[in-house]
Amino acid sequence: MIQLFFWSTPNAYKVSILLEELAMPYEVVPVHIGKGEQFEPDFLSISPNNKVPAIVDEEGPGQAPICVFESGAIMVYLAEKAKSDLFPADARRRSAVLQWLMFQMGGVGPMLGQAHHFRKYSPETIPYAIDRYTREAHRLYGVIDRQLSRHAYLAGDEYSLADIATYPWLRPYKWQGQDLNEWPNISRWYSEVRARPAVQRGLAVLAEKVDRSGKPPEGERWKNLFGQS
Amino acid sequence: MIQLFFWSTPNAYKVSILLEELAMPYEVVPVHIGKGEQFEPDFLSISPNNKVPAIVDEEGPGQAPICVFESGAIMVYLAEKAKSDLFPADARRRSAVLQWLMFQMGGVGPMLGQAHHFRKYSPETIPYAIDRYTREAHRLYGVIDRQLSRHAYLAGDEYSLADIATYPWLRPYKWQGQDLNEWPNISRWYSEVRARPAVQRGLAVLAEKVDRSGKPPEGERWKNLFGQS
Repeated sequence: MIQLFFWSTPNAYKVSILLEELAMPYEVVPVHIGKGEQFEPDFLSISPNNKVPAIVDEEGPGQAPICVFESGAIMVYLAEKAKSDLFPADARRRSAVLQWLMFQMGGVGPMLGQAHHFRKYSPETIPYAIDRYTREAHRLYGVIDRQLSRHAYLAGDEYSLADIATYPWLRPYKWQGQDLNEWPNISRWYSEVRARPAVQRGLAVLAEKVDRSGKPPEGERWKNLFGQS
Repeated sequence: MIQLFFWSTPNAYKVSILLEELAMPYEVVPVHIGKGEQFEPDFLSISPNNKVPAIVDEEGPGQAPICVFESGAIMVYLAEKAKSDLFPADARRRSAVLQWLMFQMGGVGPMLGQAHHFRKYSPETIPYAIDRYTREAHRLYGVIDRQLSRHAYLAGDEYSLADIATYPWLRPYKWQGQDLNEWPNISRWYSEVRARPAVQRGLAVLAEKVDRSGKPPEGERWKNLFGQS
């Protein structure tokens, strides 16, 4: 059985969606990041960067347990374990998936995350930073739309880890100051990915705990989320 | 022969160092990012995100050419092509390397890059952003130092892709407001990695073109670097 250390964040949804796509049994362990549970020593021994998601696979290589952190590495680990075509064996297709997965890990995730911060969470309104990350978000959407104008999916003709990694980061497009109507190819892909039953199931994990108040976090909760202690 | 599309950036050094470690022949193609050469259509067809590094391997899978973008994906591609132990075949060690490579791709690179921007390049002095990214840099150094207190290298007992990916980002530690003296384990590792002849050769690529004026970029050069056109 795989334990998934989870909270409702785009990076964590990447893994819950993948586990659903792979039909791999897993148990969800909530890590309430607003309460600071990611800083507890037990979790640190699993996730040395104090972040969700992380997994523990009791049946890792050599039938011994393994801890895996970083959503991109977890995705590769799980897809390889399942010998899934979501991370193909063919060297050329495999590299394409890894390229677009790295693009999500190094660009899409971190930069859209900064857009969220300065547009939504920062206690100060900083026009330079809002402009910087909104423009970078727009540029990234342009790169994605261009790729999807030539291929059905990010890494080519087949749905892959790259799509699963990117979709949860594009869901909060309004927080990023973006409009999907501007991007016909993203819109087509977005609807198609969203309609997948495994995607819906992955997004439903801990859905009852998602904060829908619309209120920005305050006090201890803000500090745990952004105080970087 | 491998063509390396290069400018003197931390992400590009990751690949020049790796090529030197692998003793793989390559030809350097300068992409002068201050002049905006990354936006030229010919380069875009190789690197859809308009960034260095990228490679073209004339002898890709099936002996046909392949273009690879994203430094992390290039590293995996080259190490697998060379069947190098820098990305080991053993599943457990392989996952450890990929976890710390993803940590560099998703955290170390993007966040230290934002520290560079707000501490060094931004035309506005924004205390909130400087503080945010300087503290995040400090937190990331803490994660790295803790890992290096338990292991000789980032992914365990052996030098790997994870070290090659991280070292070029820690070189400008002063730009990030950090002091290596605070981190004994990073200091030990840093000296050891720096002393490797392949690292020195990788850092010497295009060394004659590095801007050592200390002047911040201005006008068109700033726009090409940060205008995100």
